[in-house]
Parts: sequence; structure tokens; C-alpha cells
Amino acid sequence: MTVETTPAQEIAEALFRPRSIVLIGASDDPTKIGGRILAHLTDGGYPGEVHVVSRTGRPVQGRPSVTSVAELPTGIDLAVVATPAAHVPSTVAALGRHGVRVAVVVSSGFGETGTPQGRSLEAELRAACRETGIRVVGPNCQGVANLGARMVASFSSTFSRSTGLTDGSVAVLSQSGAMGAVLAQLAQPFVDGVRYWAATGNETDLTVADLLRGVVADPDVRTVQIYLEHLGNTAVLAEAAAEAARAGKTVLALKAGRTASGSRAAGSHTGALAQEDAVVDAFLARHGIVRARDPREMSELVRLFARPRPVGEGRVALVTNSGGLGVLLADEAEAHGLQLARFSERTLAQLRAGLPAFAAVQNPVDITAQLLTRPELVRNALAALEQDPGTDVVVVALGILGEYYDLDQILADVVDFQRRTTKLVMVCWVAGQRGMVERFAAHGVPAFDDTTACIRALAGLVRHERWTPPPAAEPVPAVQPPGAGRQSEHQGKQILTGWGLPVVRSLLAADPEEAVARAREIGYPVVLKLSAPSVAHKTELGLVEVGIADDDALRAAARRMLAAPVVGEIDGLLVEPMIAAVVEAAVGVLHDPAAGPVIMVGAGGVHAELLKDVRLLVPPIDETAARAAIESLALFPLLDGYRGRPPGDVDALVRLVVDLAAVPAVRAGQVTELDLNPVLVLPRGQGVVAVDVALTLRDESASRTTSL
Amino acid sequence: MTVETTPAQEIAEALFRPRSIVLIGASDDPTKIGGRILAHLTDGGYPGEVHVVSRTGRPVQGRPSVTSVAELPTGIDLAVVATPAAHVPSTVAALGRHGVRVAVVVSSGFGETGTPQGRSLEAELRAACRETGIRVVGPNCQGVANLGARMVASFSSTFSRSTGLTDGSVAVLSQSGAMGAVLAQLAQPFVDGVRYWAATGNETDLTVADLLRGVVADPDVRTVQIYLEHLGNTAVLAEAAAEAARAGKTVLALKAGRTASGSRAAGSHTGALAQEDAVVDAFLARHGIVRARDPREMSELVRLFARPRPVGEGRVALVTNSGGLGVLLADEAEAHGLQLARFSERTLAQLRAGLPAFAAVQNPVDITAQLLTRPELVRNALAALEQDPGTDVVVVALGILGEYYDLDQILADVVDFQRRTTKLVMVCWVAGQRGMVERFAAHGVPAFDDTTACIRALAGLVRHERWTPPPAAEPVPAVQPPGAGRQSEHQGKQILTGWGLPVVRSLLAADPEEAVARAREIGYPVVLKLSAPSVAHKTELGLVEVGIADDDALRAAARRMLAAPVVGEIDGLLVEPMIAAVVEAAVGVLHDPAAGPVIMVGAGGVHAELLKDVRLLVPPIDETAARAAIESLALFPLLDGYRGRPPGDVDALVRLVVDLAAVPAVRAGQVTELDLNPVLVLPRGQGVVAVDVALTLRDESASRTTSL
Repeated sequence: MTVETTPAQEIAEALFRPRSIVLIGASDDPTKIGGRILAHLTDGGYPGEVHVVSRTGRPVQGRPSVTSVAELPTGIDLAVVATPAAHVPSTVAALGRHGVRVAVVVSSGFGETGTPQGRSLEAELRAACRETGIRVVGPNCQGVANLGARMVASFSSTFSRSTGLTDGSVAVLSQSGAMGAVLAQLAQPFVDGVRYWAATGNETDLTVADLLRGVVADPDVRTVQIYLEHLGNTAVLAEAAAEAARAGKTVLALKAGRTASGSRAAGSHTGALAQEDAVVDAFLARHGIVRARDPREMSELVRLFARPRPVGEGRVALVTNSGGLGVLLADEAEAHGLQLARFSERTLAQLRAGLPAFAAVQNPVDITAQLLTRPELVRNALAALEQDPGTDVVVVALGILGEYYDLDQILADVVDFQRRTTKLVMVCWVAGQRGMVERFAAHGVPAFDDTTACIRALAGLVRHERWTPPPAAEPVPAVQPPGAGRQSEHQGKQILTGWGLPVVRSLLAADPEEAVARAREIGYPVVLKLSAPSVAHKTELGLVEVGIADDDALRAAARRMLAAPVVGEIDGLLVEPMIAAVVEAAVGVLHDPAAGPVIMVGAGGVHAELLKDVRLLVPPIDETAARAAIESLALFPLLDGYRGRPPGDVDALVRLVVDLAAVPAVRAGQVTELDLNPVLVLPRGQGVVAVDVALTLRDESASRTTSL
Repeated sequence: MTVETTPAQEIAEALFRPRSIVLIGASDDPTKIGGRILAHLTDGGYPGEVHVVSRTGRPVQGRPSVTSVAELPTGIDLAVVATPAAHVPSTVAALGRHGVRVAVVVSSGFGETGTPQGRSLEAELRAACRETGIRVVGPNCQGVANLGARMVASFSSTFSRSTGLTDGSVAVLSQSGAMGAVLAQLAQPFVDGVRYWAATGNETDLTVADLLRGVVADPDVRTVQIYLEHLGNTAVLAEAAAEAARAGKTVLALKAGRTASGSRAAGSHTGALAQEDAVVDAFLARHGIVRARDPREMSELVRLFARPRPVGEGRVALVTNSGGLGVLLADEAEAHGLQLARFSERTLAQLRAGLPAFAAVQNPVDITAQLLTRPELVRNALAALEQDPGTDVVVVALGILGEYYDLDQILADVVDFQRRTTKLVMVCWVAGQRGMVERFAAHGVPAFDDTTACIRALAGLVRHERWTPPPAAEPVPAVQPPGAGRQSEHQGKQILTGWGLPVVRSLLAADPEEAVARAREIGYPVVLKLSAPSVAHKTELGLVEVGIADDDALRAAARRMLAAPVVGEIDGLLVEPMIAAVVEAAVGVLHDPAAGPVIMVGAGGVHAELLKDVRLLVPPIDETAARAAIESLALFPLLDGYRGRPPGDVDALVRLVVDLAAVPAVRAGQVTELDLNPVLVLPRGQGVVAVDVALTLRDESASRTTSL
């Protein structure tokens, strides 16, 4: 029996705000998992009802217990299951039948073991969900918590008393429990607190993306940190990111498994599939999810995003007591594409009035080592910048030591400035008195302990402010695939022409004489190719010849190609015109197991291949996105009229990318690979034309046809 | 009168191990600079004699003082000058005449002010050095210290009691006092201590490089951290780096002013000249100086380099209690070009025996969350790796919280393992209990608080172990420059041919008919060019035509070119053969204000220009260095026979780079710019040939000639 799935909000309600909880597999011993969870529920002050199922039926940690699900009252929202893996599927099925809405399975011993038994138990667990309608977090997870509801249904050590985790505007959702703990701990000192925390383990049912939809609906949540080893269901993740964006919230992601080594490790950890990291980057960027490289960068990003202020153009003023820090920050600003503010005359005059005569008043402002005896210099510099019309962000960078400086005064002045101004205020406190970064953070000022870290986080914020949400994704069309498997050059060109894409004129000929007739139709010089599905690298096999000038040369080339040892069927010879291009580009489609179809655009030819000058775009792709990708190519100047060369038809290349992404067969995932390399970019106004087409269609259909 | 300069060792002796010191401009007030320095000398327990010169002649901080240099005893090694700038030149001159060997001028108000008065005072100070033979550190600097000799002649707050700086094997030399303080503070918790510390300010005489030669001579010094805003005298820096390398010591550099913005800021801070950062990179890499991007990376590098162990091939084993951390570290290892160790069967068996059944025993080793109740799991994993023949480095990565874990046991086990093994042991302690990183460091284990940081530092160590010192630099020859200013194509080719470099056969013709004669000599098809010193971009001006097939076409092209509006004199027409290349490369020389001649090698043509696929090499350049640079190009596969193409003559390209670097006129700095683009790389065994030569020679010579 299949039951309707519960909408995201109802799941979030039962999972994060349960009125009652049952713990299956509780223990008296608080060093055991089932014991720890019960202790956390009690210590956290969970105000709802807690039921306990134990093997013995004796009281556990002072709470009465029963020995079976059947003995429980009805109407329980949430179950936490900590029994041995073998009992989990039947227990979850029983819970589902009993009307429990969500189960968090913390037990291990499922798919993550890589054993047939483990995989089979996990399949049984999935079946229990499907059959009874209960939703499951886990298995092999560390549980969930909502500090806003004083509900800690997790054994993670992040909820031990020593971590000092408090309720706040941040949520942490992680496929790995340990990484979830790390992210929460690294964030806590720098934010107002962490409300939601969940580790999803094997994600046999509910995923980080599902829970993300739940937590962004809470108006108090402002920032969500997610840790992923695989993207999971990208449609749900994209929708959750869109919901977050509409609500003005930011999702920060740490996605591990960027490399082959990392992917392999992730595969044995959470069963993640290897995934092209450039696709992950493109997907996250498209959906406004800000990516961190490591836990440290995540902690640095969250301290800025959790206390956001509009940063306008991101023009940054640097105020420092060390010329060296000013230089390092200026370096990083330029390296990260940020603009240094240019101060108005009024600002410069005010800086001169408030600072020592030998201070540098141009940006970076060096208030000098006199800060030692004149703590008011920070205040004076900030007062001058407050009204500066060209400054959006003020970074106060100090590298000073405790006992010689009036730190309390400096702290108070920066905090006071932040209260008065609408500009973003950041502190970069490099070395010096310990704990100052946390003291600034406690007063709501984003503070960093390194120059690169500070500017990198700011650049992330500025970039995110410029991000525009993608157009709403239209439903994927149901279309008949135009064929299956690897297509010959001729078939590929026919199919692309059918899709309305610009393909070179290409005439099929069965033999040398027909080729000559076709060449006369087109006009010499021509290109000759052999078309056959089995031929992948025509150039290397000598199955392409360009610049053929006359009938004799054509006949010779045709005879040579027809005599070449080619496996399988042959369409025949293709005769095509020679076309002079401004530059060669490449456009393609690749199929990512998680993200689906991804469009590639880049420089064409062998140089581009080696230099990897390509951009990936995750649909939906509008003209803005396509143009931005093309303009960001290193070779873009060649497209745009480099050093007096004629400019290419960039608009037509943009159109090709947008049109290709909109092709129903592409959107439906029927194109597993498409490589148009080169796409000749003609002079402006004359379009683009694909001259080489390598197309592979999904092989699920038994029929094989070249017609549309 | 000019005096012989004192050798580096004698300067270092007087500066860092003075038997007596005089302080000029001492103050009773310890918040003033002159007061602070005296207090630091006293508090530090400096055992030598301290003399004081003050304005009043009254006792200062309990020490007697005199009012003039003349009243001082003779034989004083070191003077610290803290008087107002206007008095400094005369004071330093008096000190010099009095026989004082080194003066540290902490006063400000010199060149750094950017004012004519400041610049003129600094010139006077330089004159005082030159005339009396006294050497000067500063002005505008924070002083020097040698904690091994209990000598703190600095007002830097890094010597306040709260910083806990102790004597050890690290030295810090910095052009900026504040940055020197930052680097010392960030290093101290992770190393055995900091012996030498010096801030050199304006470097009007002695530089960081000079002091570097002094400190590497101390057998107890193992690592030197330097902070630079400009490279200064690169010959001295190169020699100091060579001395460090010969003594088995490492120099770590933080070089600020990487970007235009940073350079501008550095210019107003320490008067640094703008410098191509790629040249700085090439220079540092050539001389085995390891570069850090920011103070944080410097702190991370020093904790590894200060306690070095041989790392062999750098094959790294990861041991973690969090699968997520394992994935992140594996990602970073691959991204940084490190190899993950492949464990032997014996190792795997031992891991299986010592870890839970569901633990991952392949690298990364996941000892699992059972660490909670089984602290011995770390020990078990390490014991298995101890004998693994394929493991050079062990990283223990934990993300755990205090009260639930037996941290003392884990710490003891890791420290004990490090004592037993010769492998490098590192700890990556992400989040969790505060202070654990420092606790490991206190036991001599390099410890890091982030995944990227840990692996990035390791990669730096592995890369440095592979570095081989450059051949000894031969003295720069005294040669007559072959010309001056911008050379015409013809002149440039003549000069290069004279240098024995491979240049295309190129015949000069005065008119169309002579061009025809030359073309017949060479054989059609030919290339025709106009040669004139004023013509820089021939292609864009239509002054190059390739593939000319016959006399008529040649005459037409020649007439067109001779009629073109060209400014200044014309050499005539150049007739050259058409040559088919495997690939186009580019080779050149650029002249860096600090580093001198730098050789460039990269991909040729317009693609390379846009994609910046070039490497810079700082002489002396041997074959190994040239080959490594060429092999690291993104386009190298094209040179090496990509996808069935014929391989190019890489050896000949290597030879061209080595030969070009050895040309006396290049080494003597007479070539201010040379651009050979393209250099045609012919099939293997057939050499390379420069077809386009843009040469500019230094303009100091009045004579102008194209002959050698």
C-alpha cells in the first residue's frame, strides 16, 4: 500500500517541534547512544511528553518504559530509533502503523557498511516508509535538535554542556554528524546562536534539502549552513534554495568530495556518487548557495552572512595601525575583485584633522603606532568615514597587544560606530590579545583573525548580493527521444537542425561521384568527412579533410575514406563548405547524475581543451546567465574584437547556449553527451555555426532512428 | 671619505650580540618610545653595559645619563637612536666617529613621510653612514632583539610581558615592525621560541637580506620568517638564501604588495617600488624561499618547518574519527598534488584487527565515533601505520569535544607515536576542545585547526624538499651593449644571430625587385615583413604577409608595405621562408627593477597572451629548471605529441631558454625587453626557430649600432 507523502511543513513540524517523542532503545548508561539521547532530552529541558521503549520494560533514567510500540499511546509525533540495525525496519514499520509521523534512525549497520546485509536492511527500511507513510531521517545519523523548542533528539557531543550552544538565527543541516557538530561549534562564538541542527546520515528518505525547506520557513532563521557529500535530489535542493532566497535567507554550503580522492572517500563514508565538481560549483552558484571550501571558511562566511548589511558596490575602506596590514588587505581586496573606496575631499580633510600629521589618509588609512597612547585615533578615523559617500564597507584592521593599548576604548568605539552607521563594519584582528575576535563578535561586529579570511568573506557577501535568482524552472516536457546511443555525424547534424540550432550545411554522398556533385552544389573549396556512428575521433583517423580545392582532390579523398577500416555501419560521406571564423568556440551538454543536464560553453579546439577555458551552466539558463559565462572566458577578448580583429557574433553564441538549454530533449535528460567543437563564431551579425557534432542519446529506448 | 663596509658577520655580532649599548633619546616615561626601549633592555635582563644619552643629563629610569656622544666611553658596539629626526644625521655621524659600529634608528620623519624635508634628512643619514663607516638599521623602524642574549633593543609591543615570547630556533626579520610583531606572536605558541627579531623600516642602509645572512650563521636558528614589501637587493637576498640552504635552514617569506592596490599602499608605507608579482614568485621559488600569502599561512608553515622531518615522497595517511574530515582532507591532498598512501596488506590487516568491524581501513582511515568510549582506537590505528612502507606522513584529524572524550589519552598516544616513528606526524584538530592545537604543539607535534591549512602547509614542505639550489651565480660580465633603444626586426635578428640563438633565415631587401631575388633564393612560398625600429605591431598594421606564392604577389605586397605611413627610418623589407611548426611557443626577457633579467617561456601567439600560460625563470637557469618550467605549461601536451600529433623539439626549446639566460648582454641587464613570439617548435630533432623578434636595449649608451 502506498500512502501520500506529507508536505515539507508538516514533516518539519513533527521533526523539529514535536509535541511528544518516543525513544526506542533507550539506555541507563549515558555513554551509550540510547542513553545519551535520553539525557540530552532531559538536560535540554524538552517540555513535551517523552515515551521510552526498552528491552526490559524497567524504568530508564527515571522514566517508565514499555517493551513494544503497541503499548505506546497514539498521536506521537516523533520517534528516535536506536535499536540494533536488524530490528529497525520492523520497528519503523510498527511506528508507522501506530501513526508516528517521523522517525529518526540513529542506528548504524545499513548501506554505509557496504555489505549485502546492510544494503538489504536499508531496502527493508525504505519499504517500511513507503508502506506505512512514516518519514525517516537517517539511518546512521546523529539525530536532530531544535534549541528554540528545547528539543535535543541527538547524541552528538555538540550538545554537551561545554559547547555553550545557544538558540539563535542559524541552522545547521549536515549529511555527516561529526561535520554538523564542527560547523555548529565553529559558528556559535560568532553568531547569535544555532536553532536547528540535523544530521541526515544515509538519507534513505529525508534529505538535507527536505529539511532545508522546513527550516527556512521559520521567520527567525536567517542563515543555514549545510554540509553535503553529494547533492542528493537537486530539484528539491533548488526549490529549497529558491524558498530561502524569497525569504531573504542565505544558504552556505560546504560540499566535500571535490576531487577523485575525496569522492572515493565520500563513497565509503555516505555512499556519495562521484560528481564533477565544476557541475557542483555551477549548480550552487546558479541557485545562490554560497560555497565554502573548508570548515574554517564556513565559520568566516557565517559570521558575515548571519549579520547582513547591504554592501552596495562593496567599496571598502581600510583603517589600520599597521601599514603592513593595510598592504596585505589592499592586495586581497584587488585579488578578490573588490574596489578600494576613494575618499571625498571632505573625508580626507576630516582624516587629516583627526590623525597625526604623518598618518596616511589615503585608503588604506594608517592611523599609525600612536594608537598606543591615543586610543581615540580609531574613533577619529571612523567618524571621518561615516559620511564618506564612496565608502560602503569599513574594515578596522589592528595587530596590537593587550597591555600597552586601551582595548576597551577601541572596542567601544568600533561597536558604537557600527550602531550609528548603516555601512558594513568588519574587524580584522590579526594576532595580539587573544579573545578579541570573540569580544567583537559578542557585540555583533563580524570579526576575523586574518587578512585573507576577512576580505574573502566580504567578497563572498558582495558577490552574493549581486546574484539574481534563476527564472522559475518549467516542468520537464515529455518528449519522444530522437534516437538512442551514439549518433553519427550525419545523424547528429540532422537532429540538431531539427532542434532549430545553427549547423553547417552538410550534404550526404554515398560515393566519390555523388560527393563531387554535392561539392559543385556547395562550391569549392569544401570539407569532406566520413560519417559513421562508431567513429569518434575523425581527425586522428584521417577521416576529415579540409580545403579540398577541386574534383580530383575530392575523389581521391573520398576513395581513401571509404576504404578506411571502420567498424559497423557507415552513413556515407559528408560534403560541407569551408567557412572562415573569427574564432572557434565550443558548446556542449553533459549529463550529471545529480544535477541533470548541464550546458558547457568555452573556447574551441585543442587549446581550450588543454587550458580548460570553459564555463558550465545549470539550467534554467537565461540570456543574462549565458552572456555572463561567455564574457568571463579568458578567450572572450578574441570574441570581442581583440587588437583590431573583427568582433565575433557574441549575441548568436549567447542565443545558441540559451536555445540549446531549452531543447525539450536536453531538458528531459535524453542527451547524455553533446559536443559541438568547434562552433565557428562568424563576424558580428553573421551568426555562429556548429561544424562538428558528437551526440549521444540515452539508451533506454530500444528503437534507433535518425528521424525526428 | 669612504670606508670599507664591515662584513655581514661583524655587523650581526655588533647588532645582535653587543657587549655594550647606548640609547640616545631615552625617557623616564615608559609609554614613550625612548622610555619603552630602556625598560625592555632592563626587563629583558640584558647583561651588557647600557649607556644613556638624554637631553638633561639627569638619571633616566635609574640609570645615569650624559648629554652628548662625546662624553661616552669608546668601544660601544650598538647605538639605539630615538631622537627627533632632525637630530638623527648629526647624532649618527657623531656615533660613527666615536667608533660605534651599528646604529638602530627608531625615529620617524624620514623618506616615509613623502616630504622633501624627510627625504633630505634620510639622504643626510645615508651620507653619515658612508662617511663614518657606521652601519644603520632603520630609520623609522621598531628595533632589534636577540632573546638568546637577553637583548631587547626595541619598543615593539611584542616584547611586552603578556606575549610570552621565549628564546628558540626561529628568527623574524621584517621591513614592518607591526608585521614583525604579528609574525612572532603567531609563531610562538607553535615553535620552541623566537631568538632574533628585527624590524628594518626604511632600510636606508642595512636590509632584511643583510640581517638574514647574520642570523642563519647561528647554528641554533632553524627557520627564518621574513616580511617584505619590496625585495630590496636581490643579489644579497639570493646569497643569504643560499647560505641558509647550505646550512639546512628554511626561509619563509610573506611578501606584500602583490597587486597594484597593494603596491600603491606599500609605496606609501615603506616606499616599495611596484614590482611584477610573478617575478617575485619566480625569484623566491628559485632561491628556495617558501612564500606565505598571509600571516596565518606563515604561522602554519613555520609550525611545520620549525620541526622538520624528512617526508620522502610525501605519501600521506589520514586517520580520522569523522568520515567528513577524511573526505575534506583527501580533497585537499589531491588539490595540492599530494599522494594518498596506499596501505600494504599487512597494514590493512593490522587496522582491521585494531578498529571496529565497520571502520573504514582504506585511506582515509575512519576509526569511527566509537572513539568516544574507546580512546585506544587512535593508538591502534597509528601502530598499524608505523610499519607501513608506503606511508611517509600521518595526519591525525579529529573533530571532537572535550567532556565526552579522553583527550589526555589521545594526546599522549599521538605524542608517543611521534617519538617512536621517523615519519612526519601532524594533527588537524578541527573545532572541539579549545587549546588542543596548542597542547599538541607544546609537545612538538605540528598541529592545525583546519583541513585546508594542514594540507597546504604539508604540500609546502614536500615542495620545498624537492627544491634544488640553483647553480652558483657567476659574476656578471662587463660587455659592450650591441646597441641601444628599440631595435628593428632586422637589427634584432642580427643581434640574436650574433648571440648564437636560432633565428629564422631573413634576407633584407631594399625594394620589390630585390625582394623577388631574395625570395627566389629562399624558395616560395615566403613571408614578407617591413623592418623599422618604430614598428611594434606589424600584423595589425598590415606589415606582415605570409604564404606569398609567387613573384607578382610578392611585388604587390612589397609595394604596399613600402607605401605604408611609417614614422622614422626603415631598414627595408625582410624575406623569410614559410616554416611549418608543431606548435608555437614564446620566449622572452623582461627586466625587473629588483630581480634584474627574468626569462619568460610560454605558449606562443594570441591565445597564450590571453591565457597567461607562461612561466618566469630567474637566472641562473640550468636545464633542469628550464625543462621543469616548460613541462609545467598547460600547453605542454601539444609540445609532447598530443593525440597522435608529432612531438616537438622540447630539448631545443629548453636549450634556447638556457642559452638566452646565459647571453652576456642579458646577464648584464642590457636587454630591457625581448619578445620572441612566436618561436616555432619543429618536430623532434629539428630544433626551434624564432621568427619574430622584438628587442629593446638599455638606452644608457649614446652610441647606436646594429653591429656586434
